[in-house]
Amino acid sequence: MKFDSIPNPAVRRLSLYLRQLEIYSQLGQHAVSSRTLGQSLNITDAQVRKDLGYFGQFGHPGVGYNVEELIAQLRTILGTDKVWNVVVIGAGNLGRALLQYKGFVNKGFRLVAAFDDDPKKVGQPIGGVIVRPMSNIEAVVDEFAVKLAILAVPAEAAPEVCARLAQAGVMGVLNFAPVALPPRPGMAQSSVDLAVQLEQLSFQVNALLTEGA
Amino acid sequence: MKFDSIPNPAVRRLSLYLRQLEIYSQLGQHAVSSRTLGQSLNITDAQVRKDLGYFGQFGHPGVGYNVEELIAQLRTILGTDKVWNVVVIGAGNLGRALLQYKGFVNKGFRLVAAFDDDPKKVGQPIGGVIVRPMSNIEAVVDEFAVKLAILAVPAEAAPEVCARLAQAGVMGVLNFAPVALPPRPGMAQSSVDLAVQLEQLSFQVNALLTEGA
Repeated sequence: MKFDSIPNPAVRRLSLYLRQLEIYSQLGQHAVSSRTLGQSLNITDAQVRKDLGYFGQFGHPGVGYNVEELIAQLRTILGTDKVWNVVVIGAGNLGRALLQYKGFVNKGFRLVAAFDDDPKKVGQPIGGVIVRPMSNIEAVVDEFAVKLAILAVPAEAAPEVCARLAQAGVMGVLNFAPVALPPRPGMAQSSVDLAVQLEQLSFQVNALLTEGA
Repeated sequence: MKFDSIPNPAVRRLSLYLRQLEIYSQLGQHAVSSRTLGQSLNITDAQVRKDLGYFGQFGHPGVGYNVEELIAQLRTILGTDKVWNVVVIGAGNLGRALLQYKGFVNKGFRLVAAFDDDPKKVGQPIGGVIVRPMSNIEAVVDEFAVKLAILAVPAEAAPEVCARLAQAGVMGVLNFAPVALPPRPGMAQSSVDLAVQLEQLSFQVNALLTEGA
């Protein structure tokens, strides 16, 4: 299976399929067709089959997908069949919010530590973890075999912290600082630019306003 | 210009082009080719030309794109040539973080108010605005002609608040609650699911670990 030959949007849709299948599972549904799965996400059934086809043959002729089976398979593909220990760097408002974010629960991500350089924050408990000084990063990453980190530090600090995390053995960084991180071999980086998210909305609202005019 | 016939990923890339062009502008660069612009974002020059081609003819033969000109044009397309008044619903940790987020500044978004139902939060100043009671939503949306809202309320409250915002005249919602909002005609909705973001990273880290094995 060659991961890098698979288009990013397809990988993104795997997460959407997984979310939707989890809803079906909660509703007690055992089987679902690519058509139904697609319709609920506004995606064609051909697209659903193509996306899943990158990873193998999952459907059963005449039955569709077995919901629990496909959930397990998608978790394996996405790597969330195991639990990832995650650290949060920066215990400002955003870091605090992330440490208390309910959406990570049961998705395979365990926040094991938070770090900040502010002596007033160090030692504080937030969402089940204690804020530690930045000097502890390497020891904690090592102790908990941390591969994923969330960066909630100011923009000017982000590149340096990212370099340090890479050095410590972290292989994936989710960056909330409004700054582009220099690419790093052996490290996956993803930035959440909240202004970009709003910009995409303003584009759509502009479109709605134009249609309505 | 038919906005809904343009693929979402192309619209998303417009934001990336804009960010990159703003960097060129800061560096004092006046012209850029589709090749250079693409390379800096790991996108082919053909893709850059195709994406921009949905909206018109922007390049100059033999010169490439005029940086300032293209910035202005992209802002017009994305709707950020004007300033959008935005409200934040929910003044918990996430709401507070958003109200103090530096990345909205100069991107065309002005946070004009925050709302919360907690009497202890109402009246507090956060990031330049005062937290108001939820009962004021309609009056503020009306007064500031608010079209965009950021939802930072608990998952169980999100659908109801969203319905109320639609009723008040808000046309775009950026949702941080870990819940799917029911689609609403006349309203653009975009959800930031932080677990999905981490999932995409864990997929990539898995791939890196597999390659390295």
